[in-house]
Amino acid sequence: MIYLDHAAATPVDARVLKAMEPYFTEDFFNPSAAYLPAKKVAADYETAKATIAHAIGAKASDLVITAGATEANNLAFTSLLTREQVGDFSGTGVAPARRHGRSAPSSSVVTSGHPLKAPTCSRVLYLVTEHDSVRRVAERFGGQAIKVLPSGLIDLNDLRGKITDETELISVALVNNELGAIQPLAEIAKIIREVKIDRMKRGIKTQLLLHSDASQALNLLDINVARLGVDLLTLNAAKIYGPKGVGALYVSHEVKLSPLTVGGGQERGLRSGTENVPGVIGFARAVELAHEHLNGNRKKYAKWRNILLDGLEGYELINKKHCLDNFIVVCFDGIDAERLVFLLEEKGVYVATGAACAASKGVRSHVLSAIGLSDSQIAGSLRLTLGETNSEEQMHEVVNVINEIVSSECTRVKALR
Amino acid sequence: MIYLDHAAATPVDARVLKAMEPYFTEDFFNPSAAYLPAKKVAADYETAKATIAHAIGAKASDLVITAGATEANNLAFTSLLTREQVGDFSGTGVAPARRHGRSAPSSSVVTSGHPLKAPTCSRVLYLVTEHDSVRRVAERFGGQAIKVLPSGLIDLNDLRGKITDETELISVALVNNELGAIQPLAEIAKIIREVKIDRMKRGIKTQLLLHSDASQALNLLDINVARLGVDLLTLNAAKIYGPKGVGALYVSHEVKLSPLTVGGGQERGLRSGTENVPGVIGFARAVELAHEHLNGNRKKYAKWRNILLDGLEGYELINKKHCLDNFIVVCFDGIDAERLVFLLEEKGVYVATGAACAASKGVRSHVLSAIGLSDSQIAGSLRLTLGETNSEEQMHEVVNVINEIVSSECTRVKALR
Repeated sequence: MIYLDHAAATPVDARVLKAMEPYFTEDFFNPSAAYLPAKKVAADYETAKATIAHAIGAKASDLVITAGATEANNLAFTSLLTREQVGDFSGTGVAPARRHGRSAPSSSVVTSGHPLKAPTCSRVLYLVTEHDSVRRVAERFGGQAIKVLPSGLIDLNDLRGKITDETELISVALVNNELGAIQPLAEIAKIIREVKIDRMKRGIKTQLLLHSDASQALNLLDINVARLGVDLLTLNAAKIYGPKGVGALYVSHEVKLSPLTVGGGQERGLRSGTENVPGVIGFARAVELAHEHLNGNRKKYAKWRNILLDGLEGYELINKKHCLDNFIVVCFDGIDAERLVFLLEEKGVYVATGAACAASKGVRSHVLSAIGLSDSQIAGSLRLTLGETNSEEQMHEVVNVINEIVSSECTRVKALR
Repeated sequence: MIYLDHAAATPVDARVLKAMEPYFTEDFFNPSAAYLPAKKVAADYETAKATIAHAIGAKASDLVITAGATEANNLAFTSLLTREQVGDFSGTGVAPARRHGRSAPSSSVVTSGHPLKAPTCSRVLYLVTEHDSVRRVAERFGGQAIKVLPSGLIDLNDLRGKITDETELISVALVNNELGAIQPLAEIAKIIREVKIDRMKRGIKTQLLLHSDASQALNLLDINVARLGVDLLTLNAAKIYGPKGVGALYVSHEVKLSPLTVGGGQERGLRSGTENVPGVIGFARAVELAHEHLNGNRKKYAKWRNILLDGLEGYELINKKHCLDNFIVVCFDGIDAERLVFLLEEKGVYVATGAACAASKGVRSHVLSAIGLSDSQIAGSLRLTLGETNSEEQMHEVVNVINEIVSSECTRVKALR
C-alpha cells in the first residue's frame, strides 16, 4: 500500500498511542474529582494543553479543547455573537436574514446547505477556498467570500476592498487543505491593524478579528500566534499523527466567545463535558513530535515532491509555489481523475481528487474552481499529500505507476475520440 | 486502591481498548475518502453505530454521534429551534427573553451561569435533579424545573400541573447521576401521550417531546426507546468502560434538530467533523460488553451494596429504592463528608460527595437539596458508586475503613463541642 492522502487522515503515531494508553486504563479518573489521582490527571491534562499552546507561542489558558477542527472553527465564529445585543442574532447564524427583514423556512437551518444571500456589507469575510467547516458557518452569518489569485493565495486587494466598518471577523486558513497554499497571514494582520487604527481615529468601536484554521499546518510550519497576528487559531490532532476527535481553538485574551455547549463548565465555561484526557495527551505528544522533526520533515517532503515532479509525465502542476512541501496537485487535462483514483487504487496507491468530505458528496472542488481552473482541468486533477507512512522508494514506484496508468488512459481516451 | 466513584469515570475495558487500537494505526483512513480501505473504515463505523443503536432498540441512522453526553444533551435541545420561525430564537437560548421584550447583557451568554428568569409558561420542563448539562441548556431556553419526591423520583403531579399548551420538551434523566434514582419514563411518556391526544382534539399542533439522559443507565438497565417512550435519548461511552469524548443522541424520526456545528456534513448534517472512528468502535464494544453482563452485574452490585449497607454503621441511607444497584448514597449526619473523602483517600479509598463537575466548584448538591435533605445532611453525604474495578473483598475492606474513620470523626466532633 502506498498512501498519498495524508491531508485527509494520518495514522496515530505509535509514540502518540503509547502516551495515550495509560490514560485509558490506569489514569482514567475524572479530572474534576476531588481525590489525588484525579487531580494528577487534571494536572497532566493541563500540562498537555500547555505543550500544545507553547508550540504556537501561547499559554494553556488560551486554548479551548474541542472535538476537532470543525468544532473549533464553529466556536471561533461565536465571537460574532457576544458584541451584539442578546437576542439580536442567532447561534444558528440567521442574523443577516433577520436584519434584512427576511424570514427563511426552518428547513434551511437543518440542511445548512443553502447559504442565505449575503448582504452587501457583511460582518464576516472568509477566503473563498476555505474548508466547508468555515464556509458553512460563515454562510450562517451571511459571510462574504474573498477571492484568491491563480496561485491559490489570497487576493489582498480584494480583501482591502471588502473590509467595511461592519466587518468583524476575517477567516483565512493558514494552509489550504486542497492546494497546501500557505496564506500570508502576517500581511493580512497588517491590513487589519491599519483598518483598526483608522477606525480608532474615527471613533468606530467595532471589533475586527483574524481567525485562521491551521489544521494542515501544525505539522510542517513553525506557528506563532503573535507573529501571525491571529486572534483565533484552529488546531487539529488528527492531521498531525494524533487521534481523531480532538482539536483546539486558540483564543486571544481580548476575544469573547459564546459556548456551543453548556454544562459542567469545563474549559473555562466555553466547552462543557468531561475532558477527553487520552485525546489531549495524544494531541500534545503529536505536537511535540511534529516540532522535533519540523525542518527535517520539510526537507524530506521537498525532496520527495521533486522526485514526483521530475518523474511524472504529461501533467500540469497546479500548486506551483507558496505551498506546503507535502502537497502536490497535478492536473492531467482530458483525463478523468476519478478514474485515475480507481485505477491507482487497484495498484495499491491511494490518492484523492480533493477534500475527503467533499469527495464523498461528489461535489466539484470549489477550491480548484476558485483558482480559475477549467471544468476539464478540475476533472483531471489529483491531490497527492505525502506523509510519515511514505518512503523515498515509494516515490519512484508512484512515478512508474502513475505514468503507466496515465499513458494507457491517454491511449484509451484517444481511441474513443 | 479502592475506587468507588464509577459514576464519575470508568476505566476503558481492556477489550474495548483492544477493539479500538487497529483504528488508531492501520485502519486510520478518513471514512469520507473514496478508496476501498477508507470505505471499509466507513462500513465498520456504521456497523459500530448499529451495535450501539440495537442495544436501545434503534437503528444506526437514528443516532447522531457526539463528543459526549453534554454535547448530546445540548443537541437534543435544538429540537426547540426548528419549529419556530427562523430568526425568532437564538441558538444561545435567549428566546424567552426576546419573547418578553427584555434584553439581557451580553455577558449572560458567555458565563451561562445566570439563568434568565423563567416565564410562567415555559416551552421546556426539566427535572430539578438533572445534571448541569441539561439544567444549563434548559435555563438558556427559560426552562421550568419539575419537582422530585423525597425518593428522588419525579413528582408526576407536579409534572402534570406544569405541562401547558406551550410545553414542547420535557427532559428527565433515566438515572440520576447523584442518587442513581431510576425515573419512571414510561409513566411520563403515558402522560405525554394523553396531553398529545388532548391537544389533537383541540387542534393544537405544538410538539411535545421527551428527552432523557441515559448516561448512567446504559450499563445496568435494558433500555428500549420504544418501551421508554422517548423521542431523544443521550448515551455516553465514558460511563460504561468506553472511551471519554464519545457519546450519542438517539433521535426519533419525527424530531427535527439543528446542528450545533456545521461543516463537512457528517452524521446526516447534524454534526460535522471527521468521524472519531476509534472512539465509536470502542463505544460499540463497551455497549456489547455491558449487554452481555447486564443481569450478572446487577446481581453482583446488589450483593455488594448489601454488604456495605449491612456492615456500615451510624448512617442514614438516602437512596432507598428505585435506584441502580451500584449507587449507594449514605449520610453521616453531623460529620463533614468533604473531610471523610479526604480521610478515606489517605486509606486509598476514593469516593465522592456528588457530581465531579459540581464538586470541583465547591457547590452544594442541588440534587440532595431537591429531595429535601437539610444542609447538615447534605454536608454529611457520601456517594459510593460500584463498578468493574471492585471486588467483594473490597466491600468488606471499605466497611472497616469507613466505620473506623466515621467513629474517630464522631469522637473528634463530640470533643470539639
